[in-house]
Amino acid sequence: MSKYLSKRLANLEPYAPGEQPQEQPYIKLNTNENPYPPSPWVAEAISDETVNRLRLYSDPCAKSLIAAIATHYSLEPEQIMVGNGSDENLYFALRAFCDEAAPLAYADVTYGCYKVWANLMHIPSHIIPLEADYTLDPKKYYGLGETIVIANPNAPTGIALPAAEIEKICAANAGSVVIVDEAYVDFGAESCVPLIAKYKNLLVIQTYSKSRSLAGGRLGFAMGDAALIADLNRVKFSLNPYNVNSLTLLAGKAAMQDEDYFRRTCAAITDTRAKTVEALCALGFEVLPSKANFVFARTDKMPGGALYAKLKENGILVRHFDAPRTADWLRITIGTPAQMQTLNETLTKILATEE
Amino acid sequence: MSKYLSKRLANLEPYAPGEQPQEQPYIKLNTNENPYPPSPWVAEAISDETVNRLRLYSDPCAKSLIAAIATHYSLEPEQIMVGNGSDENLYFALRAFCDEAAPLAYADVTYGCYKVWANLMHIPSHIIPLEADYTLDPKKYYGLGETIVIANPNAPTGIALPAAEIEKICAANAGSVVIVDEAYVDFGAESCVPLIAKYKNLLVIQTYSKSRSLAGGRLGFAMGDAALIADLNRVKFSLNPYNVNSLTLLAGKAAMQDEDYFRRTCAAITDTRAKTVEALCALGFEVLPSKANFVFARTDKMPGGALYAKLKENGILVRHFDAPRTADWLRITIGTPAQMQTLNETLTKILATEE
Repeated sequence: MSKYLSKRLANLEPYAPGEQPQEQPYIKLNTNENPYPPSPWVAEAISDETVNRLRLYSDPCAKSLIAAIATHYSLEPEQIMVGNGSDENLYFALRAFCDEAAPLAYADVTYGCYKVWANLMHIPSHIIPLEADYTLDPKKYYGLGETIVIANPNAPTGIALPAAEIEKICAANAGSVVIVDEAYVDFGAESCVPLIAKYKNLLVIQTYSKSRSLAGGRLGFAMGDAALIADLNRVKFSLNPYNVNSLTLLAGKAAMQDEDYFRRTCAAITDTRAKTVEALCALGFEVLPSKANFVFARTDKMPGGALYAKLKENGILVRHFDAPRTADWLRITIGTPAQMQTLNETLTKILATEE
Repeated sequence: MSKYLSKRLANLEPYAPGEQPQEQPYIKLNTNENPYPPSPWVAEAISDETVNRLRLYSDPCAKSLIAAIATHYSLEPEQIMVGNGSDENLYFALRAFCDEAAPLAYADVTYGCYKVWANLMHIPSHIIPLEADYTLDPKKYYGLGETIVIANPNAPTGIALPAAEIEKICAANAGSVVIVDEAYVDFGAESCVPLIAKYKNLLVIQTYSKSRSLAGGRLGFAMGDAALIADLNRVKFSLNPYNVNSLTLLAGKAAMQDEDYFRRTCAAITDTRAKTVEALCALGFEVLPSKANFVFARTDKMPGGALYAKLKENGILVRHFDAPRTADWLRITIGTPAQMQTLNETLTKILATEE
């Protein structure tokens, strides 16, 4: 670091994203990308004409995209704001609803960025350990009087809470905001969007990166009471008014409108997930019950770090989190059936060599 | 605002971007967009195949784009980072080099976001008034011991300092970072990029929004000593690692490589600017000497706000900043020759009606 860096950032530990090899032909099961391309409507929306219109600024209010999202979720446009990835929506929410004197509560095993953002903004973290079986006990979140963020389904475990349990957390924290990060909700969990009408303190955040195959487009959205969304826009217009580029606005609108493609690709992934879990169990893996487009799995036969390295040697990238409660485990993205077949064969080979 | 908003943000005044009508057919001379489309190489780079690859995350290190920028500016890749618009690069820089105890110095009449960001991050602002003729006296920036940001050319005045004057400011502030915001530099001002090798405290920030016709793509870049860039990456990877989407990475690379198109379109705009200044002077306007793709002009015949409104009625959008030192003036983007001809005819008509 340079001698000019703010002393307040000296101990900041940035987030380490999953490996993103730009050239090597790995089977990439490490960052929960969708194995299927985005809806064909997306490529249709991005024409030479729309590219040439990049000379103009993007719509800072994202009106047309927000209208499409509002239609899909039966919300008002005032209940939605879009971000440069759901990471930005989450960052805006923490900026708006937390500060040095207003802590953030979250699980010990969850999305790593919550802690990084809290540290960057000098927000105190109230870390609530998951149970021994990696489930989240909702009662531990009742009456906290603090902003709460819950990934549902959780990452990297894949375990989901029923919406009724999140509802009880909202009801038990009427004085503070409950943020539900639904990045993976479309693969079988219950969304809290229908609760928005009832709870003014509920903010639901979703992303186009997983179920809509647009990780590279960088698009997320926050949904909640219009007053919460106005707060988020206050931060956005103080930070980066033109936060989403024009092509992504078009891509997002097209992808949201193609409901049939969305349903079919989500169904294909949940189907492949079921078969993957079956195959992993047959190989002796313990697999947590996943409602996401990944599974969290471990085996007694090899430590997580060693198995990660062996898979990488064999051309398959998965994610290993080297922390006390996750070091034994691997997070494996659900790819195509063919990719998962290769994974199965490769694991069989690696574990056979061990015996 | 909701009752949940952090008390520390209660007085925050967000930036008001220029009007971005999404439908009405205005001649749009209000947000300094380029009247020419991006290089044809950009549309070529964005194919159905690259759109379908949006299922994968964008490269968080932007390696390929940064290599193209490094080649153009004869820098090392370690001396460059890219942002979601230069607004994000500037925000990252203020986050890295300022804090509650480390103020930011800037002019009273300049890009409005500096103040908004300082307020958002609780950074004290040291505001240094421009001279009566809107020029910046470099000596007022010597030995400040504070992070400095200078827009060069300045906005909304269009007036540029010679690089030699910025160099003296860098030399006279070796203990603090000097940020030069060169959003408009390609229209005739001197860039400070050649000074980067000599001054470890110099950070130059440029954008694709103006001279490279990609305002809607949201792409900016910071250039400076590798240690400063490492600090910015520390902030970026703590905030939004995947900050630039994949299509914009491709667009930016193609636009940077098409040097000939870049030179031709910049030359066309400076040529139109000269003719526009001549025409405005013939109508009795005072016009500040501009090195940007806009001019700052006023007339005794009508107050700035009234003239802005009249032009809008006549289908032409320009920018009016309703603050004490700018209320008399209009900032007018340089469009195509035909658009500027219409502006000239419209102004002639409006001012004739007044007399």
